[in-house]
Amino acid sequence: MTKPAAAKPASASSAAADDTVITALALKPSRLSGTMEDYFGKCQEKLGFVPNVLKAYAFDNVKLEAFVAMYNDLMLAASGLSKLDREMIAVAVSSVNRCYYCLVAHGAAVRALSGDPPLGELMVMNYRAARLSKRQRAMLDFAVKLTAEPWTIEERDRDALRRAGFTDRDIWDIAAVAGFFNMSNRVASATDMRPNSVYHGQARG
Amino acid sequence: MTKPAAAKPASASSAAADDTVITALALKPSRLSGTMEDYFGKCQEKLGFVPNVLKAYAFDNVKLEAFVAMYNDLMLAASGLSKLDREMIAVAVSSVNRCYYCLVAHGAAVRALSGDPPLGELMVMNYRAARLSKRQRAMLDFAVKLTAEPWTIEERDRDALRRAGFTDRDIWDIAAVAGFFNMSNRVASATDMRPNSVYHGQARG
Amino acid sequence: MTKPAAAKPASASSAAADDTVITALALKPSRLSGTMEDYFGKCQEKLGFVPNVLKAYAFDNVKLEAFVAMYNDLMLAASGLSKLDREMIAVAVSSVNRCYYCLVAHGAAVRALSGDPPLGELMVMNYRAARLSKRQRAMLDFAVKLTAEPWTIEERDRDALRRAGFTDRDIWDIAAVAGFFNMSNRVASATDMRPNSVYHGQARG
Amino acid sequence: MTKPAAAKPASASSAAADDTVITALALKPSRLSGTMEDYFGKCQEKLGFVPNVLKAYAFDNVKLEAFVAMYNDLMLAASGLSKLDREMIAVAVSSVNRCYYCLVAHGAAVRALSGDPPLGELMVMNYRAARLSKRQRAMLDFAVKLTAEPWTIEERDRDALRRAGFTDRDIWDIAAVAGFFNMSNRVASATDMRPNSVYHGQARG
Amino acid sequence: MTKPAAAKPASASSAAADDTVITALALKPSRLSGTMEDYFGKCQEKLGFVPNVLKAYAFDNVKLEAFVAMYNDLMLAASGLSKLDREMIAVAVSSVNRCYYCLVAHGAAVRALSGDPPLGELMVMNYRAARLSKRQRAMLDFAVKLTAEPWTIEERDRDALRRAGFTDRDIWDIAAVAGFFNMSNRVASATDMRPNSVYHGQARG
Amino acid sequence: MTKPAAAKPASASSAAADDTVITALALKPSRLSGTMEDYFGKCQEKLGFVPNVLKAYAFDNVKLEAFVAMYNDLMLAASGLSKLDREMIAVAVSSVNRCYYCLVAHGAAVRALSGDPPLGELMVMNYRAARLSKRQRAMLDFAVKLTAEPWTIEERDRDALRRAGFTDRDIWDIAAVAGFFNMSNRVASATDMRPNSVYHGQARG
Repeated sequence: MTKPAAAKPASASSAAADDTVITALALKPSRLSGTMEDYFGKCQEKLGFVPNVLKAYAFDNVKLEAFVAMYNDLMLAASGLSKLDREMIAVAVSSVNRCYYCLVAHGAAVRALSGDPPLGELMVMNYRAARLSKRQRAMLDFAVKLTAEPWTIEERDRDALRRAGFTDRDIWDIAAVAGFFNMSNRVASATDMRPNSVYHGQARG
Repeated sequence: MTKPAAAKPASASSAAADDTVITALALKPSRLSGTMEDYFGKCQEKLGFVPNVLKAYAFDNVKLEAFVAMYNDLMLAASGLSKLDREMIAVAVSSVNRCYYCLVAHGAAVRALSGDPPLGELMVMNYRAARLSKRQRAMLDFAVKLTAEPWTIEERDRDALRRAGFTDRDIWDIAAVAGFFNMSNRVASATDMRPNSVYHGQARG
Repeated sequence: MTKPAAAKPASASSAAADDTVITALALKPSRLSGTMEDYFGKCQEKLGFVPNVLKAYAFDNVKLEAFVAMYNDLMLAASGLSKLDREMIAVAVSSVNRCYYCLVAHGAAVRALSGDPPLGELMVMNYRAARLSKRQRAMLDFAVKLTAEPWTIEERDRDALRRAGFTDRDIWDIAAVAGFFNMSNRVASATDMRPNSVYHGQARG
Repeated sequence: MTKPAAAKPASASSAAADDTVITALALKPSRLSGTMEDYFGKCQEKLGFVPNVLKAYAFDNVKLEAFVAMYNDLMLAASGLSKLDREMIAVAVSSVNRCYYCLVAHGAAVRALSGDPPLGELMVMNYRAARLSKRQRAMLDFAVKLTAEPWTIEERDRDALRRAGFTDRDIWDIAAVAGFFNMSNRVASATDMRPNSVYHGQARG
Repeated sequence: MTKPAAAKPASASSAAADDTVITALALKPSRLSGTMEDYFGKCQEKLGFVPNVLKAYAFDNVKLEAFVAMYNDLMLAASGLSKLDREMIAVAVSSVNRCYYCLVAHGAAVRALSGDPPLGELMVMNYRAARLSKRQRAMLDFAVKLTAEPWTIEERDRDALRRAGFTDRDIWDIAAVAGFFNMSNRVASATDMRPNSVYHGQARG
Repeated sequence: MTKPAAAKPASASSAAADDTVITALALKPSRLSGTMEDYFGKCQEKLGFVPNVLKAYAFDNVKLEAFVAMYNDLMLAASGLSKLDREMIAVAVSSVNRCYYCLVAHGAAVRALSGDPPLGELMVMNYRAARLSKRQRAMLDFAVKLTAEPWTIEERDRDALRRAGFTDRDIWDIAAVAGFFNMSNRVASATDMRPNSVYHGQARG
């Protein structure tokens, strides 16, 4: 068995690359609206950094605002799904799509919101191995099937969610969050978006 | 060989169901904002109908506005991609995901924008069988690979787009449109969203 | 939302190519037998054209006769399956295999025989989204599974057909039609067979 | 290492079942035409048995004649492909589809025609592991791709065959044989067709 | 129908290559330990040959001993699984992975141990087509699912084995044998390992 | 954007379950040999714990010794591959197979040996997103292809490794390590093996 050495300090040429490159595309930052400037400021203040996905969209203020509006409604607005539920969907979907950016950023959110660091790892690695409530398992089964084989979703799949206690409005929210990360995973993969390195150490317990 | 009879008038119990059911979810329409009411009015005036996807989102005005803002920016704003380019991506992506709603609605758009009805069918059925410019073929190859196996996209794929004449900004737009329909396909499939029947006969040439 | 313009007349260099090219193979037409000449004449008279698949096989009269004999028996002879049933299988199978020729030609047949144009689209796009009888759904589930994963068909699959009201003879016919289009799809895809352009506008309702 | 015992005589309840059951479908033999009676007689005389696939089709003389006509033209008529080439395609295609009937019957034919028993096993197990000429390898690569992903075949695939020395007529024959076994594999799997047990011991060298 | 000729004697340039090449890697045999020399001698005596997999590992005596120790324990030690059960798992797993070496060597073992030559072919070609006891079918279903989609194995899969009469210890053995051949299949495929030609004719009945 | 709270202490009913359950199988520990007792003692002393995989095998001392012998030779013996190379293969293979146990345990090893915590995450999530040397990339491409589609490995794949600087002996080692984790992943998934919780916090940097 290999004895784990204490981690050496990450070198400048880490496999994840440094924090100054956001994507593989050469796009110049545009002038942000006041609203977006305030939003970036709030991120900096609350999180200590601006998530790279926001910097990636910042080449075009209209696109940035549309992304932020949809993201914040989906992940933070009132819903029958808790914030943790939504982050778990985000990570389980991103695991199917093997999206580095989203797995790092939202894996950290699952660890933080749950206070259960292995839960974040389980969502990244294989949600089927987690000890979940029937409700959460049904939610993730639907989100993952919708990601991998959307053409096979039928009334019986919606009924499985209803039997697990979800309302029709909840089903919409599960679909919308799963759908959103199927979009974000692809924008991130298409552009080689790199997560802020600070996520790696967050909420490791 | 079967002689095609003239099509009989579609019965009330068509396989596509009638136009009064929008999705399989029981969600009540909410009160729309003035902006959205005006937008629905403009759709009715210009298209002769309100696309069902808008009615589906109308149970929550915030979600509707976020969807409309993102959609209109992606599909209609200035871009190195023509509107037809973007609709072709929409259909080729929806073909991978076998999304009935998006194939019907955006297949009609390809037929109309191109003035070449078989082009719409080709995007629905198999884009590889179409006679396309190298530029359009490269664009669709990227969008389809990003849809089917997003984890395999690498610098060589972006370089293939650059060699076909696309700028880095164009690459973002290809990714964003392909990503968006990967989201919409899943929301539509998850909710069994039904396209307005009027699309079927549009621009058949 | 994009306003659909009236379709412009298809240009000579349509994405589907013109009607003079049948396949990508340089094969000279052979001398047809009297029976086949008569058959081509009957097609011209009844349909107004000779289906391109027949022209494609016409480089060898023996192969043409064998194809016609098998095709006409399968699709037109007495059977517990209606002609529409058989055309629906043809299109659902061709959808799995994404065969442009067969989807265009047999999608038109489904529209014509059913008098329900959206049904043709549903078979092309995703048969699971159609409102079908249990009998038709069982039939297509079997045909599609047989197409995608023939090695997994077992007695339980045949029993599902029997429970849906099919006789053993009907099961043979479902298998034979599904099998036939798995052959035709591959001959068409291997040779880039192009459908007669007239199919596109047929029975659009 | 296990010492192989001499094979014990196969019991009446072998895993392959006995030779009296042809398929899982209860279909009564119909009256055969004189031509087909003669053909069955010729099989009995030359091979020592009537292949079960013929007995399976014998419930309907028209279907039997159509099958025999197509089969004999494809596998035995003059062609740029040798009979062994065609049997190798048959087995490589049947391997993708994991068709027990066709692998047993045509595996035996490859062993017999080649005089190289391991070649039959290689076609059944993994044609990529065989030592083949570039010509045969190109032929099988095309047939297997056409079987597994027919929608991806394009001009570059046909050109690879041309570069390997095949004419356009040969390409048709490769496609037609591969297509035919994609049909037969599915009819056999759908009906649980059982091969004559005599094939197992043939041409084992 | 093709008349099978008597198999001609295999030429020196058989598609399976001759018996002097073991793998595609240029690795020199190392000095074997006395234990391994004895073991090779015992193979020669009992089987008439040393299986090529042993010769392949013989470049490093430590690796050879580790392989032999694990192999002999798994396949020959006391277990709730018979030796035939274990060989059937070996072949069904190797069929999923299309491993030429293991299918040839262990297909021969199934033929020999069962005294039912077609059973060996069924394991190679498609175990679902075999007439098996419920116990053996459950065992192979588990092994094949574990091979193809290990991430989907859950308690319900283990319970299916328990219901079929297997103890938890038996489940371990099924998993360990299936796992072992997933390893061996890959070592064999990675190195193009060739089976001893003598296997082809063994126990053909 | 969600503000990550400090992780709350993991509750007793964590999604990963507690550390007293090793697998889902009820297997009693057997009496260990002196060698194995010493080995467990050395693990406890050096690592602070006995890895659960060893406890899982401890129901049978012969199996445990065979596993330990093979594991230690593969991962620790002299090789052209560094220990980090071998751990990177372990994790990239386990990512294809989505094996929770191996991803947790060997992900920690990659973090520790590299001193680059994000490298561990990259191997778990998508090795293609890592900044790797050409040599390491070629090594992982081979290991991952061998895992996902072992039947497609051919001489050209081995040549790609040779061009990247690997000897034939190194190719064996890459194959053997990749093969070993294809075995271990399946034993772990089949038995629901749970990693020691201590791994989660190791070498997070």
